Amino acid sequence: MNVARLARRPVKVTQSFTKQSIRCRSSRAASTCPMPSQKAGPSFPCVEAHAARESRILASSSKSTFAPRPQPTAPPNSGPEPPYARPSPSSYKVYHHSEPLALVYAPSLPEFDIAYETWGELTPARDNVILLHTGLSASSHAASSELNPSEGWWEKFIGPGRALDTNQFFIICTNVLGGCYGSTGPSSIDPLTGQPYATRFPVLSMFDMVRAQFCLLDHLGIESLYASVGSSMGAMQSLAAAWLYPERVGKVVSISGTARSSPSAIAMRYAQRSVLMADPNWNNGFYYDGLPPHTGMKLARQIATITYRSGPEWDLRFGRKLRAVPTSDSVAYSDPSGRKLPRTPALCPDFLIETYLDYQGEQFCLKYDANSLIYISKAMDLFDMTASSLSSLYLTPPPPRNSLPPLPPSVSSHPRSPSHAAYHSHLSHSKHHPPPANPPPHLSELAEGLSPLSNTPTLILGVQSDILFPVEQQREVADALRMAGNQMVSYYELGGVWGHDTFLLDVQNVGGAIRGFLS
Amino acid sequence: MNVARLARRPVKVTQSFTKQSIRCRSSRAASTCPMPSQKAGPSFPCVEAHAARESRILASSSKSTFAPRPQPTAPPNSGPEPPYARPSPSSYKVYHHSEPLALVYAPSLPEFDIAYETWGELTPARDNVILLHTGLSASSHAASSELNPSEGWWEKFIGPGRALDTNQFFIICTNVLGGCYGSTGPSSIDPLTGQPYATRFPVLSMFDMVRAQFCLLDHLGIESLYASVGSSMGAMQSLAAAWLYPERVGKVVSISGTARSSPSAIAMRYAQRSVLMADPNWNNGFYYDGLPPHTGMKLARQIATITYRSGPEWDLRFGRKLRAVPTSDSVAYSDPSGRKLPRTPALCPDFLIETYLDYQGEQFCLKYDANSLIYISKAMDLFDMTASSLSSLYLTPPPPRNSLPPLPPSVSSHPRSPSHAAYHSHLSHSKHHPPPANPPPHLSELAEGLSPLSNTPTLILGVQSDILFPVEQQREVADALRMAGNQMVSYYELGGVWGHDTFLLDVQNVGGAIRGFLS
Repeated sequence: MNVARLARRPVKVTQSFTKQSIRCRSSRAASTCPMPSQKAGPSFPCVEAHAARESRILASSSKSTFAPRPQPTAPPNSGPEPPYARPSPSSYKVYHHSEPLALVYAPSLPEFDIAYETWGELTPARDNVILLHTGLSASSHAASSELNPSEGWWEKFIGPGRALDTNQFFIICTNVLGGCYGSTGPSSIDPLTGQPYATRFPVLSMFDMVRAQFCLLDHLGIESLYASVGSSMGAMQSLAAAWLYPERVGKVVSISGTARSSPSAIAMRYAQRSVLMADPNWNNGFYYDGLPPHTGMKLARQIATITYRSGPEWDLRFGRKLRAVPTSDSVAYSDPSGRKLPRTPALCPDFLIETYLDYQGEQFCLKYDANSLIYISKAMDLFDMTASSLSSLYLTPPPPRNSLPPLPPSVSSHPRSPSHAAYHSHLSHSKHHPPPANPPPHLSELAEGLSPLSNTPTLILGVQSDILFPVEQQREVADALRMAGNQMVSYYELGGVWGHDTFLLDVQNVGGAIRGFLS
Repeated sequence: MNVARLARRPVKVTQSFTKQSIRCRSSRAASTCPMPSQKAGPSFPCVEAHAARESRILASSSKSTFAPRPQPTAPPNSGPEPPYARPSPSSYKVYHHSEPLALVYAPSLPEFDIAYETWGELTPARDNVILLHTGLSASSHAASSELNPSEGWWEKFIGPGRALDTNQFFIICTNVLGGCYGSTGPSSIDPLTGQPYATRFPVLSMFDMVRAQFCLLDHLGIESLYASVGSSMGAMQSLAAAWLYPERVGKVVSISGTARSSPSAIAMRYAQRSVLMADPNWNNGFYYDGLPPHTGMKLARQIATITYRSGPEWDLRFGRKLRAVPTSDSVAYSDPSGRKLPRTPALCPDFLIETYLDYQGEQFCLKYDANSLIYISKAMDLFDMTASSLSSLYLTPPPPRNSLPPLPPSVSSHPRSPSHAAYHSHLSHSKHHPPPANPPPHLSELAEGLSPLSNTPTLILGVQSDILFPVEQQREVADALRMAGNQMVSYYELGGVWGHDTFLLDVQNVGGAIRGFLS
């Protein structure tokens, strides 16, 4: 959802409320809604912020012009933050697919759009294509381009001489099916009703998203990919692409992903969906002609942010430091007897770590569509490449790969021999984790599920401080691939304190590993 | 807050709403609030549950009788769960302190009550007392007793021959200041206004809570404790007690606690407070004559539950299993062409891990006062025993301990000599973590802060799978105590998959360590 677009739409309110009652409904400030029991009570700026945001949305809507909302102030020492660019419709290309797309969990989507951007030049043989998959909430705008010169979310990883080298590769990044940055998702108009799908949108699978991407590749006349590259949710898609189309994917890069979402990760995403769906504005997903669930989105993003970073980073970056308070508040207090009192702590954000979460939530809450967040995070939860799970989806199994597949063009000079594998292994400087001698049943099941990737050179990269996709899950994927007979698994394990967000920040190590693997 | 009590109070609604509009306000079901844009849309039982709960509260209130609400169904394979007993006012004793209590962050509380329970017999010399501190949301009902035969939250740890041996010790457990199970807290009546304090209640420190407990000890004529014992927040209190009253505390037991809340733990508690305070029913804390923020409480408890357990436990207990669905829903679907489709996933809880979080939230949301949760969790965030933090609180520093303090009566036969320390060390079977040769500055600061405990035998016990109070923080406390010169630190590190909740569940190892240390 685009805030500017939202602001220009007339805001309808539900029949039960006047505008005044809506303002009161979401306002928790005594000054706007008289509360008989609260005489000159304390005020809570962090709670009033929700009502103030709502007032800004209503005001900008009623003026039919987009008044830029005040940006929240970044906490001091705000440290490295990944950019998330919000694209305008003119800044990306759109492929319209007018045929139905069969889905995993539902009969089909009658038609769909895929928004995408590209960097570099396609060779005449169309053999230098990298499909870059996004994380949950990122758009197709991975890097600046002529169409959109603003910084992308992987700006420093894409360009001449960079990890994804535009001198060599033609890079395509799409906004996923289910998203809200130009591709068809819950906020799109259902051609059958003329209304937004909202929660009538079918539940999506990661495999649906990848199939939609390959419809785009078909349209572009691209038969095979040099590589499928992704981080976080993008890593799931990267693996799914090679599973669905083993003959069309030359190499796989999976960074901070998993082949099987864990109960812990599901729990964290469930907590986010819960707070979002409990926002009265969510209205069972039917909010497109009213106010969006901006408070729920802020709360959900706060929870998500906790999973994106690591405790050690926060220890270093924030420690137990408090926000700066106005000078008048910072003087020492004393009680009537003259005893000194410390500064009074606030129940609203007071520690810098709290102001950081507040800031991240506020920055995000109107940038992304709530239903897209729900559908895509659910698709992540559902992702499971163990054999039994895959077979329960009734997906057409990929053809058996008795013979070695054709090599990606640029590595065709390296025969797939033990020496080739050794060469790869040397290049990657990977830690070796030979598959366990007595693997647990789920690992054998995962190896069986991943068997279509048994001949696909694969880079698995994980980060030791990642609490969302912990490094054990990276090892699990690497082990399962090796158990499936894949002798071209490069496994990297990075240190550092950035947790899951490392893939957005550590250009040197993440970028270097990718560049080495793709070369 | 007691549901029965709440249900008997007349429910006032704010001036802006009729009862009908309130029901609609919180209802997200199309069937109760007409939504023009939602024709025969999907239904969301997990969202409707909030409105249904609200209706039950209103209905039981208008009838002025307490209709027991339907209990949520426990997910299958629900595994070990700690009991949290909800006491009735007749089941505990109350000490009323009619003098003002000076507070750390505010001048004083004019008067207060402390609810408490006891087990075992006080010796004539009053020298066999163990003060047991609770975690955040537990009541004083640690174990069954004649007054209250229902199971307590530490039932298996208290009794004849158990970790806290009632044949030997007189055990006191209080409900903390700020709580809602009989002690004075935000839901109590402010004697100055005749109304509940709500958020006019002063921000509390862990030290305030402990001082209030020692007022009770004074009242009971108990000069010194054999031991101060606590887990989680109770471990903070246990350390704080020995810091404030080094001459009155014989031994300290700190289980899965910390001497300094980390930014990660603050972040998780902040996320809980945020969702709670964003619930419109919270109303800046002034909800005692209206509907409580039950939805916010449920969402907060879901987040908290994630921090109480560990990923490995959930892997074993739930894995990726789905809830059972009615037979009619579980049959295989097919699309019009006859292609088989898997069972349609739900956006409401569907994985067992989701139903577990939902159940835990639902179980808790009307059992505890929202403001108590906010105040006590904030007090946990504020807890920091580094020297600079303690000095910023203007707490009266404890007297210097140049001479050895009197020993607790029952260990007085062991002279405090190196051999005594060696004896303790032998008893504890602890892993040895000698203090680092070049400690980081914060550790030196913590050692300085903890110096009043330099002669107090202390058991520090942590759990490797605890993500809320990670084992590094247990080592930090043990290291700091040793750096402060304490030669009687017993350090245990437990394995297992139960995470933070281990202290409630692992009777054998946690109980055994305590029993060994106290003997």
